[in-house]
Amino acid sequence: MTAALAELRHRLGEIADLRRAERMLIWDMSVLMPAAGGGARAAQLESVERIAHERFVDERIGQLLDQLEPYADGLPYDADDACLIRVTRSDWEKARRVPAELSAEIAKARAESFEVWVDARERSDFDSFRPALERMLGLKQRYAECFAPYDDPYDALLDDYEPGMRTAEVRAVFDVLKPELTSLLAGGPSDEEEGFMRGLFPVDAQHALSLELLERLGAPAGEFRLDPTVHPFATNSGLRDIRITTRYAEDDLYSLFTAMHEFGHGIYQHGVSPSLDRTPMETAPSRTDFSMALHESQSRLWENLVGRSLPFWRWFYPRLQETFPDVLGDVSLERFHRAVNRVRRSFIRVDADETTYGLHIILRFELEQELVAGRLAVKDLPDAWNARFHELFGFEVPNDAAGVLQDVHWGDGLFGYFPTYQLGNVLSVQIWARVAEAIPDLEEQIERGEFADLLGWLRKNLYVHGRKFTPAETIERVVGGPIDPQPYLRYLRDKLGVPSTA
Amino acid sequence: MTAALAELRHRLGEIADLRRAERMLIWDMSVLMPAAGGGARAAQLESVERIAHERFVDERIGQLLDQLEPYADGLPYDADDACLIRVTRSDWEKARRVPAELSAEIAKARAESFEVWVDARERSDFDSFRPALERMLGLKQRYAECFAPYDDPYDALLDDYEPGMRTAEVRAVFDVLKPELTSLLAGGPSDEEEGFMRGLFPVDAQHALSLELLERLGAPAGEFRLDPTVHPFATNSGLRDIRITTRYAEDDLYSLFTAMHEFGHGIYQHGVSPSLDRTPMETAPSRTDFSMALHESQSRLWENLVGRSLPFWRWFYPRLQETFPDVLGDVSLERFHRAVNRVRRSFIRVDADETTYGLHIILRFELEQELVAGRLAVKDLPDAWNARFHELFGFEVPNDAAGVLQDVHWGDGLFGYFPTYQLGNVLSVQIWARVAEAIPDLEEQIERGEFADLLGWLRKNLYVHGRKFTPAETIERVVGGPIDPQPYLRYLRDKLGVPSTA
Repeated sequence: MTAALAELRHRLGEIADLRRAERMLIWDMSVLMPAAGGGARAAQLESVERIAHERFVDERIGQLLDQLEPYADGLPYDADDACLIRVTRSDWEKARRVPAELSAEIAKARAESFEVWVDARERSDFDSFRPALERMLGLKQRYAECFAPYDDPYDALLDDYEPGMRTAEVRAVFDVLKPELTSLLAGGPSDEEEGFMRGLFPVDAQHALSLELLERLGAPAGEFRLDPTVHPFATNSGLRDIRITTRYAEDDLYSLFTAMHEFGHGIYQHGVSPSLDRTPMETAPSRTDFSMALHESQSRLWENLVGRSLPFWRWFYPRLQETFPDVLGDVSLERFHRAVNRVRRSFIRVDADETTYGLHIILRFELEQELVAGRLAVKDLPDAWNARFHELFGFEVPNDAAGVLQDVHWGDGLFGYFPTYQLGNVLSVQIWARVAEAIPDLEEQIERGEFADLLGWLRKNLYVHGRKFTPAETIERVVGGPIDPQPYLRYLRDKLGVPSTA
Repeated sequence: MTAALAELRHRLGEIADLRRAERMLIWDMSVLMPAAGGGARAAQLESVERIAHERFVDERIGQLLDQLEPYADGLPYDADDACLIRVTRSDWEKARRVPAELSAEIAKARAESFEVWVDARERSDFDSFRPALERMLGLKQRYAECFAPYDDPYDALLDDYEPGMRTAEVRAVFDVLKPELTSLLAGGPSDEEEGFMRGLFPVDAQHALSLELLERLGAPAGEFRLDPTVHPFATNSGLRDIRITTRYAEDDLYSLFTAMHEFGHGIYQHGVSPSLDRTPMETAPSRTDFSMALHESQSRLWENLVGRSLPFWRWFYPRLQETFPDVLGDVSLERFHRAVNRVRRSFIRVDADETTYGLHIILRFELEQELVAGRLAVKDLPDAWNARFHELFGFEVPNDAAGVLQDVHWGDGLFGYFPTYQLGNVLSVQIWARVAEAIPDLEEQIERGEFADLLGWLRKNLYVHGRKFTPAETIERVVGGPIDPQPYLRYLRDKLGVPSTA
């Protein structure tokens, strides 16, 4: 038994090392690789991924699991070894369902569709993207079939990002949100942008401020890196080597919110128990096969619940004014705080405020279910998008670049991914409510720039578990029940000064 | 046959990808990894290395080679496929000689001895390093035994860095050099250091100048990176993704010579024929299993033959003066050129000038042969070092830190590596003589900052071949004969203004 466990851990450790190597190759490619290195890098990623996959789906892993399951049955449900064997079994069964050729074809299609999408978006020309999207949709439909029978083919895709969750459960949450958000948006304010939000904020100073902020929030300098990229993300090479990326513009302060967002992803991984190191129970920020909603709940918690709150800015605004005295010297705290919380009607999901964001997701969730089920053809997608957008937001999409072509996800095969963003928003407020109960002077601590109790609570109740439990089990452990949209709606109403309809 | 060749190429391509991934993990670790990431990174490197090794020594590779050898026999000797099969066979036979446990033990000992050496050198305390060195020497003696029978156990170690070369051949070259270098050093000048060489040279300006220099020498900006590290090196992730590293000090201009040195390593790899991409025939700068002497000949050619020459500084000195006018504005070209070529009697190999350098190597070459053969015990090494140093250099070593503890190599298991540095110096001058014959106006071109013909000649006659041929065959192709120390001695005598003794 000991020998079987040691062999399983050794094999899984090697695979974890390959995955980490893969993540570093991607980080390097995104952050600093010379442009001409792309071809060689693609080959490296393909080889490392194939070798990691082959080693994981090996028969031998199944034999070891067979030998070890009686041992696991005798352990407490939450013992590390019991979880290791349970999680590995579940991952292994799932990974073996998909033929290697199909995985390879999807990987190839992803690589090829990216350039096509970039070009199509630039020219706002959906037709040039259509064949790539049709091909990808067909591949993902074949992928979903590998998991038949199912209630809904969308279930199989959603499962990649939110294991165990059903489409019907998401729909139940979104059915509550949709009318509420629509009415909040229709009745609520739409603030003009304040001139001072357009800078000038020199990039070096923003970078220094971001680093300072990360360290104050709880990222040890010798265990994190922060680098600029085009598309910010978080990844890691180990529990003590967290790489987060951000972006800067001289006429915007979004870098501070991006840094806090990616900090949330990074610190979640950083807090995983060392006993889960080099096992499938890590929650690497860039692996999508754990609850993306839980991961996103942490990026949103730090970005929004902390980073857009008045107590936070009571602490940090003087530092900001000190750094950019010409722009912010005469702007009051209250005015600045309102400016970073303004509601605006936008076409673009990634620019959306907290209220509008959910509607952007609901739009995509509805359309992608129809695409996957074959009820909506790709050729009819732009019209369907524009009609549905008008229905939800009350105004017209000007062109496909600001509409159906705005996101990379579908061309990249990520059907079923979008809802996790909004589930993350919902969860972030549920978790915040629990933290606020546990730490009565939470606001006062934040006003003093103290985050140790907050981070400690999140570590102990969430981060430390990694992927030991299913997403549903983990959510139950951290908030004491299932996903519930009500705290989130109350939070938005509060923020917008709208009286509760409940 | 076609299927066997495709399978062999596929397998070797995957292994090349793993090796490149490994090199990127090492580059990242040396350049920018957060300090706390070391433990996880060591595990990744161990896993990737083990998997690459296992896949290479697989029986299947041997079967494919057996099938393909009749095909290779029908091809011209220099056909890519013929070389692929020949080189792979030779690498495969060699790799299978060493038991996996011994390789693992050596890797472990290397990792463990590094810290011990750093600490021992810092305190100039050989005794604390002695057990680690004894262990490593024992392991490398066992390693050499894997290749018995041999004329000399040192042959087996030398073969890792200079495949096919015998200890006796190195000795023949060094036996010519030793008395000549000793007499040059005894009779030659020893220049005082010029005050202006101590700066101040702001690091940012040095970095910008290094980048400019690399591009002018022939490194396309989108295919190279230059980053600061503690110990400069060159590595790559592909033929079009070359990473060179350097170091800076505000009171020294060594960064320019380091950049040119590492450029030489990088541009060699960059010039390998694309038809050899992802095969064992690449000459990655950080792989030691090709001729390190040829690799070093290129770093030295660009650093010394180009970079310390008067024509080069005729072109580049005005840029340097313009960059550092306060320090160099009043210093003449001739004085500066003399300063970067000064001869000084030093204890430290890496600080040595071109004349002294060879003696540092000869010292190590003699001692390591005795260690490997068991004629010299590790406990007696410091005394042997100091006595031999006095004999060669004519003055005393002040302490072990400036003596036997100065280099990382022996603790790292690199017995047999040192001579390749000096063979590289010797070869660089032989190759330079051929280039000068082929390009009659070479000096004039360099004076105009034009390097395209020089680089083109080196590419066509050397770089493009990669590891297609043995080192001896490659040397024969590029210089038309074996290694010959005479051009190198003439070059030194010229430089020192000493009349030829020949």
